[in-house]
Amino acid sequence: MKLYSVFTGLLLSVSLFGQTTLSFDSLLTQSLSQGKSYEYLRQLCKDIGPRLSGSENAAKAVQWGKEVLTEVGVDRVYLQPVMVPHWERGEEENAFVIGSEKPLKTKALGGTVGTDGKAISGKLVEVTSFTQLEELGKKGVLKGAVVLFNQPMNAALRNTFMAYSGAVSQRSEGAWRAAQHGAVGVLVRSLTLAKDAYPHTGGMRYKDGVKKIPALAVSTEDADWLSKQLANGEKLSVGMELTAKWFEDAPSHNVIAEWKGTENPDEIITIGGHLDSWDVGEGAHDDGAGIVHSIEALRLLVESGYMPKNTLRVVLFMNEENGVRGGEKYAAEAKTNNEKHVGAIESDRGGFAPVGFSIQASDERVAQFKKYEKQLAVFGISEVFKGYGGVDIGKLAEPFPNIVLSGLVPESQRYFNYHHADTDVLEAVDERELKIGAAAMAAMLYIFDQEL
Amino acid sequence: MKLYSVFTGLLLSVSLFGQTTLSFDSLLTQSLSQGKSYEYLRQLCKDIGPRLSGSENAAKAVQWGKEVLTEVGVDRVYLQPVMVPHWERGEEENAFVIGSEKPLKTKALGGTVGTDGKAISGKLVEVTSFTQLEELGKKGVLKGAVVLFNQPMNAALRNTFMAYSGAVSQRSEGAWRAAQHGAVGVLVRSLTLAKDAYPHTGGMRYKDGVKKIPALAVSTEDADWLSKQLANGEKLSVGMELTAKWFEDAPSHNVIAEWKGTENPDEIITIGGHLDSWDVGEGAHDDGAGIVHSIEALRLLVESGYMPKNTLRVVLFMNEENGVRGGEKYAAEAKTNNEKHVGAIESDRGGFAPVGFSIQASDERVAQFKKYEKQLAVFGISEVFKGYGGVDIGKLAEPFPNIVLSGLVPESQRYFNYHHADTDVLEAVDERELKIGAAAMAAMLYIFDQEL
Repeated sequence: MKLYSVFTGLLLSVSLFGQTTLSFDSLLTQSLSQGKSYEYLRQLCKDIGPRLSGSENAAKAVQWGKEVLTEVGVDRVYLQPVMVPHWERGEEENAFVIGSEKPLKTKALGGTVGTDGKAISGKLVEVTSFTQLEELGKKGVLKGAVVLFNQPMNAALRNTFMAYSGAVSQRSEGAWRAAQHGAVGVLVRSLTLAKDAYPHTGGMRYKDGVKKIPALAVSTEDADWLSKQLANGEKLSVGMELTAKWFEDAPSHNVIAEWKGTENPDEIITIGGHLDSWDVGEGAHDDGAGIVHSIEALRLLVESGYMPKNTLRVVLFMNEENGVRGGEKYAAEAKTNNEKHVGAIESDRGGFAPVGFSIQASDERVAQFKKYEKQLAVFGISEVFKGYGGVDIGKLAEPFPNIVLSGLVPESQRYFNYHHADTDVLEAVDERELKIGAAAMAAMLYIFDQEL
Repeated sequence: MKLYSVFTGLLLSVSLFGQTTLSFDSLLTQSLSQGKSYEYLRQLCKDIGPRLSGSENAAKAVQWGKEVLTEVGVDRVYLQPVMVPHWERGEEENAFVIGSEKPLKTKALGGTVGTDGKAISGKLVEVTSFTQLEELGKKGVLKGAVVLFNQPMNAALRNTFMAYSGAVSQRSEGAWRAAQHGAVGVLVRSLTLAKDAYPHTGGMRYKDGVKKIPALAVSTEDADWLSKQLANGEKLSVGMELTAKWFEDAPSHNVIAEWKGTENPDEIITIGGHLDSWDVGEGAHDDGAGIVHSIEALRLLVESGYMPKNTLRVVLFMNEENGVRGGEKYAAEAKTNNEKHVGAIESDRGGFAPVGFSIQASDERVAQFKKYEKQLAVFGISEVFKGYGGVDIGKLAEPFPNIVLSGLVPESQRYFNYHHADTDVLEAVDERELKIGAAAMAAMLYIFDQEL
């Protein structure tokens, strides 16, 4: 019945002068039994909420991040100014089938224009590929139409991020591609594998010289319903009314905490996620999880008495969702200041149980990290593999071509149930899965510090 | 944009005379894109619901299982009669602090006696170990008391089944151990790592010659609240009123589907889970998931055109939760009929994303299966390891000492949030995680057939 004997090891093993090795078992034990990551996430989700770049909530999140990192107690916490895009969805974001009682579940895509205080409308035309769009466009069918982009994510792929990659271009490019053929608006099937009533927003962009037409995400249930009506030979006209609006770029910040290295203080290893989120739900998995993973990784190392060889930095990046200005600014400043960046780790794939780490580097470097696979199994990690690091840290690759980048890979099955939707709230995050991820991030930060 | 080209491979590759190899990729693809496991689970959870041994719902589940397996279309589907324990919780299962307005969230433990139409009561005494119970018992403190067993599961362990094992004896043995010292009733902290308002039931047993006293599970929130009151020096008296009742053993059945082997028809490989559940929630993870994993594993192999070498049997075991009579009966009949059982696979750890398979066999046998680890990675399986197979198939080990047993191991973090509680419903199961598990079970059934 003595269950608690494992609890005490960690802090007792620390000498007054700090330690240079640490036990992954102890990191896991500390995170699961006394860790703060879930409480951090509760604060970010419930005390602040969604935090789109340029919003008041984003500014609150910056202050929160500064305070929390200051409490962790490393050498220096500071804000790095960055100008960010400022877009707001406004009050109205409706689409409706003209002559039907059925309301469609829709949300403005991030970056869409509005409809100038009036509704627009057009006959509904469904496509499931850009090829099909081009064919219909050439026939003149899309003139004055509302295009429904209705390509489902491929459910047969185990890796849901692969399924997302295969379908996301209809969201990001659908509007301008349809506009080229005279369409007046687009509806885009929500990028989720769930069949439900939640529209999922996300970034979209226009093309210079092509008319900007409004774009809405529609729930998968409604996309299927519309498709079925059309397949039955119904002629549908769809109206849209949006008050989405662009504003001038706004001042904001990356939040940075720095812990000086004892051997190579000029060599920098960064760990981070993005502090901004879309303006729906609470940005819990995307990317509150990555933020608290990163803060907690630092806190666990500090608490363990570890003394870093290199300088470690936590960076809470601003504006990943609609601009990556924070990642760009961080990399640009690093270059300007002649810093030496040797490694960076990112968490931006949700707060689910960790299953792997990607390593973006040469084969030799990948092998150097792959040798830790067995030790990382304590966190449920099964694979350290060559792969993409992350969007924000990716900006460091240009000024620092030899940098090693790594991304935490959690189990991906449920991610797109919540991604960019009202359902991405604290309750969608399992406390223990989050805490295991935080411990795994601490372990990888330690590995980077040892190997670089 | 051509996402669907991977969909078609499986059935097209099948010859008229069946095949002897198959692609794990295709199993996964079929299960994720066109699999039936989630629909099977919906039927079991929503059309039937909880199905405790001896109940009307358990009888309905037997009929359902027979029908679904018949549709899969193998050689023979039959019911194996088995007498099962029959216990009912009845209408009342309350505990209350005398003189307090606060209602306690409680549920009768499975197998408890009732209180004969009246309330019983006693001063509340908390213990967190049997050692402490014995010490207080010797001092006479427990005479006439209600004992609160309040040992939490160890949150520091990543494997939640280990944490469960370390705390479950207070539920299974607490009542008779407390009764030995004169206690009149017990409350047992719910076996979950969540801090919430849901009581979790589960099996308990009495000891011959020791007075049978009533036993209730109490939610972790309420266990913590009671503990805090006691720590503050409050004297609490707790009342209990239960209408739980034992009946005569009832007739029931295991459901068996048999697919004759083409090479060794007398050598049998079993795959299964348990059809009964506790009488709360919908028995979705425990063990609806194991039931539909097993049925779907068979269906996927049939659909693929695979021809088994050995005889494959799906067994939907009755009465795992409070008796294991189904497992016992299956093993006993196998012995009586001089059958030859070479392998068995069980799924009874939930419908979460699979991460491993245990193999209960000699080291040589474990090595034989471990060589499939890399191939199984397509399902997210990272480990094939020597370990316990499962409760129901475990009964085959005595008559067939050389049998190889295997258990599916899903990610365990969320399992005890739902285990034996009202929250174990269809909505707690992720469709994709379930489907991946079903495909992994099909793959392991294939591996068993190849290797044994």
